[in-house]
Amino acid sequence: MRIELVNTGDELLLGDTINTNAAWLGQQVAALGLMVSRHLVVSDGAVIKDAISEAASRSDVVLVSGGLGPTNDDLTRESMAELLGLPLELDEGIKAHLEDFFARRNRVMSASNLKQAMVPRGALVLDNPFGTAPGLYFPAELGCARGWNTHFFLLPGPPRELKPMMEAHVEPRLRSLLPDGASRAIRYFKITGLGESDIVERVEKKLEAVPGLTLGYCIRQGDVDVRLSGQPEPVAAGEAIVREHLGEHIVSTDRRLIEQVVVHALAERGQWLATAESCTGGFLTSRITDVSGSSGVFGHGFITYANEAKQKHLGVPAALLAEHGAVSEPVCRAMAEGALAASGADHALALTGVAGPTGGSDDKPVGTVFVGLASRGAETAVRKFFYPGTRDRFKLLASQAALDMLRRRLSGLPMG
Amino acid sequence: MRIELVNTGDELLLGDTINTNAAWLGQQVAALGLMVSRHLVVSDGAVIKDAISEAASRSDVVLVSGGLGPTNDDLTRESMAELLGLPLELDEGIKAHLEDFFARRNRVMSASNLKQAMVPRGALVLDNPFGTAPGLYFPAELGCARGWNTHFFLLPGPPRELKPMMEAHVEPRLRSLLPDGASRAIRYFKITGLGESDIVERVEKKLEAVPGLTLGYCIRQGDVDVRLSGQPEPVAAGEAIVREHLGEHIVSTDRRLIEQVVVHALAERGQWLATAESCTGGFLTSRITDVSGSSGVFGHGFITYANEAKQKHLGVPAALLAEHGAVSEPVCRAMAEGALAASGADHALALTGVAGPTGGSDDKPVGTVFVGLASRGAETAVRKFFYPGTRDRFKLLASQAALDMLRRRLSGLPMG
Repeated sequence: MRIELVNTGDELLLGDTINTNAAWLGQQVAALGLMVSRHLVVSDGAVIKDAISEAASRSDVVLVSGGLGPTNDDLTRESMAELLGLPLELDEGIKAHLEDFFARRNRVMSASNLKQAMVPRGALVLDNPFGTAPGLYFPAELGCARGWNTHFFLLPGPPRELKPMMEAHVEPRLRSLLPDGASRAIRYFKITGLGESDIVERVEKKLEAVPGLTLGYCIRQGDVDVRLSGQPEPVAAGEAIVREHLGEHIVSTDRRLIEQVVVHALAERGQWLATAESCTGGFLTSRITDVSGSSGVFGHGFITYANEAKQKHLGVPAALLAEHGAVSEPVCRAMAEGALAASGADHALALTGVAGPTGGSDDKPVGTVFVGLASRGAETAVRKFFYPGTRDRFKLLASQAALDMLRRRLSGLPMG
Repeated sequence: MRIELVNTGDELLLGDTINTNAAWLGQQVAALGLMVSRHLVVSDGAVIKDAISEAASRSDVVLVSGGLGPTNDDLTRESMAELLGLPLELDEGIKAHLEDFFARRNRVMSASNLKQAMVPRGALVLDNPFGTAPGLYFPAELGCARGWNTHFFLLPGPPRELKPMMEAHVEPRLRSLLPDGASRAIRYFKITGLGESDIVERVEKKLEAVPGLTLGYCIRQGDVDVRLSGQPEPVAAGEAIVREHLGEHIVSTDRRLIEQVVVHALAERGQWLATAESCTGGFLTSRITDVSGSSGVFGHGFITYANEAKQKHLGVPAALLAEHGAVSEPVCRAMAEGALAASGADHALALTGVAGPTGGSDDKPVGTVFVGLASRGAETAVRKFFYPGTRDRFKLLASQAALDMLRRRLSGLPMG
């Protein structure tokens, strides 16, 4: 099945908005074992008609996003109606939804919004609970007069409207168009602590040998999503392979981020976490406090950039700093244990390293970082990592390593 | 001048990579007073030939990125040579660069890399100091046999290679193709503390009335870049308007972020900053420590999520917390002053608020935040803000407000 994606929006072409929708839709399509074959971005306005027409002539499915708004430049609905020769008719259900939408927000609906209630005859309305523009589905029969055999989906541009509509209305219809779509299974494994090449080496050949299994990766800094899709049987066979060979590196199978996994695990145990950050400068704690409910597991954090701060707030002995330097195993250990004592928490994570771009030495080059984990009733663990590169990447990977040490301790796994 | 953009890469269509290049290139083109008219993404492999051919038939300039690598799927170079009927010839300069690139990294160059040294006859080589794939420029004459009058630029896909090449080699050539390109001026104003609609209201009509001035915005959460471009005279007239009406909201005119502006201003004065964060959970401090050199101005940070932490580390009186609650003007003031005392810094920023999604009340709804700034020898300032919405947005806007209060104090401006 051939799928093309068409986006409309000057803000995309001017670069004022990064097109995250395209990547997200690409992943959704890939999860069905398919691949978007072309992705085209055009301006607002009449040019959308040519773009849709070109895509239709080559494709079984065309996903269009954007241009469903109330302004004069929003012409996707009208262009589709023209292309397929369908009259536009007022849909009373959409009109009522629009009136309700504005009333709830104490806003007055302008006359121009009413054009969002116009539906080309024969198209199916896709509800939009998060905005004013409903989506539209044009089954392939509607285009047969043009010689096309193409299903069209018109979707709103804003991600908070597009994503739920894709999941609720488009994805089930796409599945129903696939011969094996209805029963197709998808599994995600979020993997950390292994690079892409390690993952490939451990499982790729084995997974590719499973007939009917589609394998995909989503590679980010810090973790990799391994995606298995296909009929339930091959997916189950693939899952067994992933669990056997990537076992302790699996952070989650429900797409939760490692900070979510860790906060939830602490909450289940009723335990508290403290942090002591030097080189990551608050980034680790910010990730933890990104998780809703983190105030139930996190109370005290220290950003001890200066040596004096390490001494004063964490009780790191001046002699230790003088003997080993701030970036050292003993200082990291003292920071973690000091944060545990100063906070009364059950676990404390500490980081000290050289984020760069300056401050490195032969002995401790830029990218060196020590991560410590002190826990009540357990031995303090300190590990050394090396993440050269940009400051952003360093902060991300160092905080990821810290979260992974805590995840491992909370799961009873070895420190890695 | 009509410009189209063509990207090749399965990772873009599968959604494994978000296409940030497209937005960045869109902005670069917009800064020249032009707009990308179409942006097309296609698969790796032979399909790039059709994509380039289609774009060429409609455009004066085609920017192609991706497909210059060493693998069998990287066919952009070969496709262009075929389209224009140009023989591929080994370029000794590129070969030497490749050999040197691998030698410096102690890696062995594989034979497949040599295809990156092949140049279609007549194309100009664009140096790539950051990778193995050089860019290529095909002046319009090369395509005249096809009936095209199109300039082609082939660029590598990785952003760290593409961006410097665009700036060093493509942008000057695009300017030279514009009638007024060589003398064209561009000015950026980074604006904070005003919404997009405020900015539009204050300056848009006035700027649009300047003949020959091109106005653009890049809107982010927290700040907006106002971009003026055109010949030097209208740009200077526009700058005077921006300075008059947006004056104290201008963070920088050299694209520096507010955290960079603040760190640099502190460094110039030899002053130190401390932080005390509750609701933002380390995000403010992480932004500050993103700036290289921040260790010269920042030493102590406190993430006092729990009330007990506010008391113990910042000396906030228990009675104050009991009487006013943690999210209050007096507690915020005590946090800022406590952080100043505990750190010995010259300035201390404090934040306390309700990030949500839970924890709000009628009195202090989700989104409420107090920001305090205590400075040696100045009165402590506390301001109240309201940033409802997601947790991410809250953390970003609250930290932005804090940085802006400090920027204003360091610049001798009123607190706003």
